[in-house]
Amino acid sequence: MAGQGILHGVGVGPGDPQLLTLKACEIIKAADVLAYPVNGSGKSRAREIASAVIPEDAEELPIHLPMKVERGPARKAYDAAAGIIAGHMGAGRNVAYLCVGDPLFYGSFMYLAARLEDTHEIEVVPGVTSLSACAARTHMPLGGRSDVLSVVPATLDEAALKAALANADAAAIIKVGRHFGKVRDVLRAAGLAERALILEGASGDNERVMLLEDAAEKDAPYFSTILVRRGELA
Amino acid sequence: MAGQGILHGVGVGPGDPQLLTLKACEIIKAADVLAYPVNGSGKSRAREIASAVIPEDAEELPIHLPMKVERGPARKAYDAAAGIIAGHMGAGRNVAYLCVGDPLFYGSFMYLAARLEDTHEIEVVPGVTSLSACAARTHMPLGGRSDVLSVVPATLDEAALKAALANADAAAIIKVGRHFGKVRDVLRAAGLAERALILEGASGDNERVMLLEDAAEKDAPYFSTILVRRGELA
Repeated sequence: MAGQGILHGVGVGPGDPQLLTLKACEIIKAADVLAYPVNGSGKSRAREIASAVIPEDAEELPIHLPMKVERGPARKAYDAAAGIIAGHMGAGRNVAYLCVGDPLFYGSFMYLAARLEDTHEIEVVPGVTSLSACAARTHMPLGGRSDVLSVVPATLDEAALKAALANADAAAIIKVGRHFGKVRDVLRAAGLAERALILEGASGDNERVMLLEDAAEKDAPYFSTILVRRGELA
Repeated sequence: MAGQGILHGVGVGPGDPQLLTLKACEIIKAADVLAYPVNGSGKSRAREIASAVIPEDAEELPIHLPMKVERGPARKAYDAAAGIIAGHMGAGRNVAYLCVGDPLFYGSFMYLAARLEDTHEIEVVPGVTSLSACAARTHMPLGGRSDVLSVVPATLDEAALKAALANADAAAIIKVGRHFGKVRDVLRAAGLAERALILEGASGDNERVMLLEDAAEKDAPYFSTILVRRGELA
């Protein structure tokens, strides 16, 4: 791999630009190419979070990745993105791929890395997750002493949600959005709804937090998170 | 609370000083009092990680907290520490309490915060967890798409470990240490041992990673972590 560039997966944290790590800042400033995922309307949350440390003359590589569940189009988009990134690396350029939160915690980077890691040098710069930001905002501990913590995507069906919560002392339910009603019903049935909190955009400019039972369904966008604990801290 | 200081719980990340956040650096530099837990031999890992940004003339407050499981002595130590911190805050001083990793992820800060939060202003600065550092080192994703991630303390008994792993697609078993043999047996019985990785000191100077099955029992100190996934990324 002599002469090849390195791909850095760089976690930029949950939203507050001050939650970038020193290492993330350093890698972003030194990268030859800055890649980041963009949504359908061309916006990149990862780029926004890191914008203060992106050099004015940076070579930027916005990558369109479908958020859809259908696997076929997503696979093709990842294949194409991996090919473009590999092209830069083959020309000796270091590429930094910006990731909201942590690169290996429910993000897109792992799917790029899986396509490149057998043939290319990859380094991951871990970041502060949205989960830690939610805990910081609410002061609700994610885990203490012998607690089991479950991180549960709201996309699961009711039975799978119930099973994932059954043995947890604390849980974070992520990607709530349109699954709000289903998740609330499962939490109610488990006797966990009353103390649950729901958050949006933790650590960012527009963060909101409320009791789950106070939240109307319209208050739960795609990226919201529910935190719940079964009991008091021992 | 006019005139009272603020208590900041500051995550300093998993070990690499470059994984401090910009906000952690800022709060540490500006604090009137820097508190941190020390072990029986007077060492503080949190202080070591942050040492490069601690001002030379900082007022430091080492806090001795027993790591023991017995609750009585620990409660007394936390009560005493909370009293000392409250004394500084009452005199108008801002106190930063340094935490390895993230303040609300299996650390000591939540027990101090529980004693002070009804009467004092507390802010939490989230940090990069050891879990994210382990994932970064191994490139093993903590969670993707609809994965359930379980964080499981190795201190649990075999039945509780088994139950906590039953519905997880990915798991991190923390605080392995002297529980290595028990955890390995549970993972073997669940068909998960073969692909499991064990890590020590991820992101720090002395980090090590190996296959679980290659690790002899002497290779698993208190803070080691096992990462395991049930299947390939979908």
